[in-house]
Order: sequence, then C-alpha cells, then structure tokens
Amino acid sequence: MKILVINCGSSSLKYQLIDMNGEEVLCKGLVERIGIEGSRIKHDTTGKERVIIEEPMANHKIALGLVLNAIIDENHGAIKSMDEIGAVGHRVVHGGETFASSVIIDDEVMKVLDECIELAPLHNPPNITGIEACKELMPNTPMVAVFDTAFHQTMEADNYIYPIPYEYYEKYKIRRYGFHGTSHKYVALRAAEILGKDIKDLNIVTCHLGNGSSVCAVQGGKSMDTSMGFTPLEGLAMGTRSGDIDPAIIPFIMGKENMTFDEVNNMLNKQSGVLGISGISSDFRDLEIAMEEGNTRAKLALDVFVNRVKKYVGAYVATMCRIDALVFTAGIGENSSYIREKVCEGLECLGLKIDSELNDVRGEEAQLNKDLTSATILVIPTNEELMIARDTLELVSK
Amino acid sequence: MKILVINCGSSSLKYQLIDMNGEEVLCKGLVERIGIEGSRIKHDTTGKERVIIEEPMANHKIALGLVLNAIIDENHGAIKSMDEIGAVGHRVVHGGETFASSVIIDDEVMKVLDECIELAPLHNPPNITGIEACKELMPNTPMVAVFDTAFHQTMEADNYIYPIPYEYYEKYKIRRYGFHGTSHKYVALRAAEILGKDIKDLNIVTCHLGNGSSVCAVQGGKSMDTSMGFTPLEGLAMGTRSGDIDPAIIPFIMGKENMTFDEVNNMLNKQSGVLGISGISSDFRDLEIAMEEGNTRAKLALDVFVNRVKKYVGAYVATMCRIDALVFTAGIGENSSYIREKVCEGLECLGLKIDSELNDVRGEEAQLNKDLTSATILVIPTNEELMIARDTLELVSK
Repeated sequence: MKILVINCGSSSLKYQLIDMNGEEVLCKGLVERIGIEGSRIKHDTTGKERVIIEEPMANHKIALGLVLNAIIDENHGAIKSMDEIGAVGHRVVHGGETFASSVIIDDEVMKVLDECIELAPLHNPPNITGIEACKELMPNTPMVAVFDTAFHQTMEADNYIYPIPYEYYEKYKIRRYGFHGTSHKYVALRAAEILGKDIKDLNIVTCHLGNGSSVCAVQGGKSMDTSMGFTPLEGLAMGTRSGDIDPAIIPFIMGKENMTFDEVNNMLNKQSGVLGISGISSDFRDLEIAMEEGNTRAKLALDVFVNRVKKYVGAYVATMCRIDALVFTAGIGENSSYIREKVCEGLECLGLKIDSELNDVRGEEAQLNKDLTSATILVIPTNEELMIARDTLELVSK
Repeated sequence: MKILVINCGSSSLKYQLIDMNGEEVLCKGLVERIGIEGSRIKHDTTGKERVIIEEPMANHKIALGLVLNAIIDENHGAIKSMDEIGAVGHRVVHGGETFASSVIIDDEVMKVLDECIELAPLHNPPNITGIEACKELMPNTPMVAVFDTAFHQTMEADNYIYPIPYEYYEKYKIRRYGFHGTSHKYVALRAAEILGKDIKDLNIVTCHLGNGSSVCAVQGGKSMDTSMGFTPLEGLAMGTRSGDIDPAIIPFIMGKENMTFDEVNNMLNKQSGVLGISGISSDFRDLEIAMEEGNTRAKLALDVFVNRVKKYVGAYVATMCRIDALVFTAGIGENSSYIREKVCEGLECLGLKIDSELNDVRGEEAQLNKDLTSATILVIPTNEELMIARDTLELVSK
C-alpha cells in the first residue's frame, strides 16, 4: 500500500508518499509560507530532479491541491492517479488522554480533536486544517491521526501528575502528556538497531532539539519521562518558547504589564526562549553566528539552552539509574555540532564522552564516541513520517 | 558579644541567643500559633529545664515581648538584662538583587525590604513584622538582615536568566534568586569539615527538604545553581507549593476557573504541592502514615516529591561534572529515613550508595554510606541561626 503522510504547521506542510512494500519513499516535499507572500513547494520525487513550484497559496487546501497535483504529475510525479494512495496518515500534536494510540479519523475523532485545541493552541489547529483539506480533496481515502502524545502514555502517575490540586487533573485532565513522541520513539528504536541490541534492555535518553525541543527518558522502549508537559511549552528553552520558569513569574508579569492570559500565553509561546534572551533570533544558526561575532546575549541564549538540555540528561540518567545511549535528533540535534559538544561537555561522569572529530557531522547517522566502554552518543535523523506511515498501515489493514 | 537571632514565620517565631565567644547557644526557643488560639513558647536555656509559656499572643510584637522576658527571667532566663544583647540578626527571605550579602538595617533598607514583598509574598511580610517589633522593643540595639537569597548571588547568568523576553529582567529584575541560602551554605561548610577537606575542592549537592524545599549545587563553596527561582515557588514539589509546572497550566486554569492572579498565586503557594496531590496533608509524617495505611494518593504525593528531588540531584551532578557529597537537611531531610532512602534509590550510577542501617537516624549528623570510594551521603541538621549570628557579628564589629 502507498501511504501519504501529512504534517501541517501553521504556515507549512510537509508530506511524504511512502510505498509500504519496502518502506520506500516515492516522493516528498515541503510547502513553505502558506498564507504568506512567497508560497512555494519543494517537491522531490525519488530518482528525479527537485521541482520548485512557486504559486500563491492562500490556505492549506490550496497548498494540498497543488501537492497532490505534483505527486501525480506526469513529469515530476511519483504515481499516476490519486487512487493509488491507499491511506493518509496525519501528524496531530495533542491527543489528550483520549488517544493513547493512533486512530482512524471519523466525525467523533474530529470532535475530540477540536476539544484538544486548547491544550495545544499553536499546533492542533493547523493539524485539523490539514485533515479537513485532505478530507475535501480525497473524500474516499481512509485517514489516520498519529499523535505526538501517544508514545508518552506509558509514563507512570508519579511522572505525569503535577503538584497542584488533584481536582484539576480530574476536572480538566491537567497532567504531563509529553510531545514529539513519534520522533522519540523512532530514534530510540533506531538506536537499538544501530547498537544491535534489544530495545527492552536499553536505557536511552533522546534529545529532540529543533525549534520545539524535548528530552525523553526511554527505558526498555517505553517513555518513562519527558520534558514537555501539559502543553509543548514546558521543559527546555526553545526557539520562542520559555520552557520551565518559576510559575510565580506569570501572575507577576500579568500584574505588572496588565496582561490578559491570552497575551501571557502568546508571550511565553512566541516571544520567549532563545529569541527572548537574545533579542535577535529564534534560529540557532543565527545565534551561533552572532555569538562568534561577539554578541553576548546570543551566547547567553545558547548557554541557557545547553544548560537545560544537560540538566535534563542528568535528571533522566538519575531516573533510569543508567544510560546506554544518548541520541541527538531534529534540526539542531542533527546539525549543530556546537550544541552537541556543549551538551556533552562535563558529562563524562555519566559515561558520556564525545569525540570532537566524530562530532563534526551534519544530518546523518553517526556515532560520536570512540570509547566503546562508555555510553554511546548517536546522531540519528528523525523519521516521524515513517513511524506515521507504519501506524497508518497497521490501522487501515485491520 | 551576645547576638539574638530572630526568624519570623507568618504564625511562628524562632529565636536563639548565641554567645559568639565560643559560638555557644545560651538559650533558644520557638513561638507557635501567633495570632491563633493556643499560642505558646517553648523556651530552652542551656543547662536548665524547658519552660512552656502558654499565653495569648495576638501578634509578633506581643510574642517577642514575652520571648525577651523569658530570656532575662531570673529563673529560666539566660542573661540578666536586655543590654547584654549586642545585636539582633534577622532572617529575611528575599533580598532581590539589591542585597548580595547581609546588611545593617536602617530606614533605607526597610524601604527596599518593603519593595521586595511582592517577590516573596508569603515570607517577607512576617520577616518585616519581626524586625519592626524588635525595633520597637530594642530601639538602641543594632540589627542585621541576613538574606536567604544572598548565598546564591554567585550563580552565573546562564543559570539565573529565564528564557523569557530579556526586558523583564531589565525592567523588573525577574531572574532566578534561589532561597534557603543560609542553610545550603551552612551544611555545605559543615560537610567539608566532616570530610576533612577544603570546600574549594568539593562538589556538593545539598537538599534542604522541609515544608519549603530546595536543592543546591555547591561547587567549591559557591552556589552554582539551585531549584528555587524568582520566588520560593519554583523547583521541588513542597508541602503546599507546586514547584515546577508547565507554565501554560496557569493561564489555562485562570481561564477555566475565572481566577484572578492573586487567586492563582494563592492556589500555587498554599493549596498545591503534596497537599494538593494527596488532598489530606502537607505534613510528610501524616503522608507516610496514610501511605502505610494504603492511601494511594498519599503515596503518589510522596512519589512525586521523591522523583523531583532525584531529578534535581541528577541534574546538578551533570552540571558540576562530579559529586563528592550529597547532604540532607531541614525537617524532612533530617528526620525522614524513608524519603532519604527513596531519593537515593537507583542513584548508585552517580556514585551514591545509601546504607539502610546507617540511614536509620533522626535529627543528628550522620554518614549514610559505608562504601568510602563512593560519594559521601550525609545528614546534617541545619543551623541557619549560627550563620546569621556570624554575619551579624561581622557587620556590627566593623
């Protein structure tokens, strides 16, 4: 079966068409700047040259229509007809407690997804928009939702219950959910393959470091704890998100600045993180360049980011009693040798010894330590699309 | 010189009269239930029998007056006249960035202390009340304020700057301050003495676990990082305080429950922590008993508490690259062998091996590990009063 995987951001859309017979990517692409001037699709069909499609795309439905045209285009397409697409797998960020695993999308599911919007106000709305656009364009194709939260449903209550009145868990399901689950699961499974060991025997800390970042303690293949929480705001400092702060800061700033809670949410989600500290950018490449040019606040932003990753790694080693592998993935984790080196600096005490030469690698699988007696440090490019396609296949084959 | 040390809580007052010539405690006591029915003073003069003074005490001034009477009482007192008290040292919780060390109290200091109230709304007001009562009763005695925040002023920016817009640090001084500094400093210094080593060569993690709890990474005698932050709300789950939560929870609950930020502050400070989870008590003794009787939410509250201590210990070991000693202090740290054992469970990977037999100790200095090749685990009853008296002596002697 051929499965189309869709991952909608607020102004972006990533897609892959995967032939599950061999798990082969037939084509893939990225739509950028949806609803913004300069919309374009970078479309790559395996074995063919990249095509850039520059056309106005006012919304996700228009963008998706152009993507489907590109996929079946007789010159740069991968298949002849949309009928060849057996199912669509959608990445959905927040599944609440309702969705402990992937699910075939029906009207009831759509209703619950709507209810989950307030749990992930930045992420779930574009996911839903993507599903709706797909349903209009491919009304007879089965669709599956794969949740970023599902992998973390194995957490125990002592890791997911917050120290606030218990009634808020009962009334509003306020608890730790965790995100990037599909990514943490993929790289943990892949790490076990690389190490040639059964994942059941491994304690792995996975660092998904991108514009949104989280760390996960994976024990025996199961998520034991993770840094994101009730929403994707908690945990590490991120591109524009604050991560962990003293909760008292929020009412304090609201009082001082006369902010509504929508405004404070916006500030913590969109104006904080390394952008907030540096004042110049949420992009780590920009910050590394600015730091090299002597910008002290860019350096401070990177230092804060690194410190917090390091502390979560230490916390999870303590939680799991041992670490067999530390995995870096996602935009920063796969590409920034600077951040990886800084995170590992001083972690020799935990058995993590990075090798600077081996660390000089971008965007490909690599082992970063020579010393085979210590815990293995790996770069593994994430592949959420493949995980989504696998889940989709399993559900529509039932 | 004889120095009176005062530590005022909202309904309590602890005091010690210390002869700095030999650092000998002449008398000490605890006033409980100030402003509540059943007020009483437990007064102990060294070498004499304990006296319990049960009298209505409507406010701190009345309480302090009775304390001073007890100190100079010809039967159970320690000195003959108040003139023998050379200075008073006051514990003050929050000194902001203004007070990087202890200070002689004058009108200007009182003004700044007032400004610091919003940073520690639970703690600074009773501290100020205590100073004012003292000033009225002993107008000619010099007074010193010793801040819980001062020890942590050695933190570097990458540990004290939050990933929020930098302007909030510039405008409102929102940053990590840390608390219990006097206690962390005392037990770290004492740990070095016990180990017979120069504190400059030691990496120590100090766990001040009481009704308010915090962990501190002490490297070479300096606070490098600590779990409390802008206010004493951040970090560990505490008796009634939430500690770390997803910041997005706050605007979420405020919206759902139509709460003001005063109400949400109150909820996070007074109705959360192990009380919030268990629904029964903020007292760890109650929770341990309830757990033994099968109360699952009491067990959950203790599990959450332990998990978070363990994670901070792991984080700080990662931050400091090594740990030489782990120190437990304050009410829970000194008395609960259950909590100490649970915190250390599985931390063998960090070189921390607790011995159950040695851990069967309450309220006294003890070493909890037999294995001398691993990091030393210590119980050290805190002595904030002595630290306050030392600072007071130093300042008034200048």
